[in-house]
Amino acid sequence: MMEMKPIGTIHTPFIDLAGMPIQPAGASGVRGTVEVSEEYQAGLKDLDGFSHIVLLYAFHRSEGFKLQVVPFMDTEPRGLFATRAPKRPNPIGLSIVQLDRIEGGILHVQNVDMLDGTPLLDIKPYVPEFDSHTNVRTGWLEHTSKTVGKRQSDDRFK
Amino acid sequence: MMEMKPIGTIHTPFIDLAGMPIQPAGASGVRGTVEVSEEYQAGLKDLDGFSHIVLLYAFHRSEGFKLQVVPFMDTEPRGLFATRAPKRPNPIGLSIVQLDRIEGGILHVQNVDMLDGTPLLDIKPYVPEFDSHTNVRTGWLEHTSKTVGKRQSDDRFK
Repeated sequence: MMEMKPIGTIHTPFIDLAGMPIQPAGASGVRGTVEVSEEYQAGLKDLDGFSHIVLLYAFHRSEGFKLQVVPFMDTEPRGLFATRAPKRPNPIGLSIVQLDRIEGGILHVQNVDMLDGTPLLDIKPYVPEFDSHTNVRTGWLEHTSKTVGKRQSDDRFK
Repeated sequence: MMEMKPIGTIHTPFIDLAGMPIQPAGASGVRGTVEVSEEYQAGLKDLDGFSHIVLLYAFHRSEGFKLQVVPFMDTEPRGLFATRAPKRPNPIGLSIVQLDRIEGGILHVQNVDMLDGTPLLDIKPYVPEFDSHTNVRTGWLEHTSKTVGKRQSDDRFK
């Protein structure tokens, strides 16, 4: 067992689970703030040089988990670890957001897709050499995107 | 306070902190395995469709933290959250590895850069639409890379 303690709070326009963006495209340009607790603010030095940051946070409204889930926009149950579903054995969320500016202990960010009031666990600099990969296969998500794309095209030209 | 419980163990060739790769380039092609505990193995369904996965794990050999650290290959103290240093308020590590194959509860992976015996906290599929970003600034890391590059060139042509 390890104990985690929030180091701040993420503020977003999303106050309940119903109105959440379901894909990063849906959160594009959505502004939020990350409020870092005073005792940790000295750790923010030099972070303003980075255009993107990794936020690790608690899925604080999620309780319990199932090892297989039917993701949104899919009809088949998928293995939990092949999804980004919030109900997980260790409910840690990961989002990469754009960092616009830092004012004291407040980070102004864009592309937020988490609930308002989400407890912050860690901030890391986003480094493409570590975090960006090419020639990537994305399993069931690829299939789903293709299906969705095809369906829209069919509708559009009918 | 939140409690985290390991869901498995990461095995790598790195048995002590001294011989670790210091950059992802140093870990390229390094093979390891991720052993998922039996009770969580049903969550691995569909994961084999993904070529890359995100591993979240505990920096289990790190105790305490400092809010400013002098990173390797730098001479200036940097804010902790502008580094990937392991000693953090919540010592959660994040690495994206290549998934070669899954055999039962064992994931065979490449590009591992963590210590042997590292406790696994979560596995997520790597999805470029969520996790890959372009037009990125990387602050002090950019400066460091440029300086290193320049120094090597100077030596080479003298």
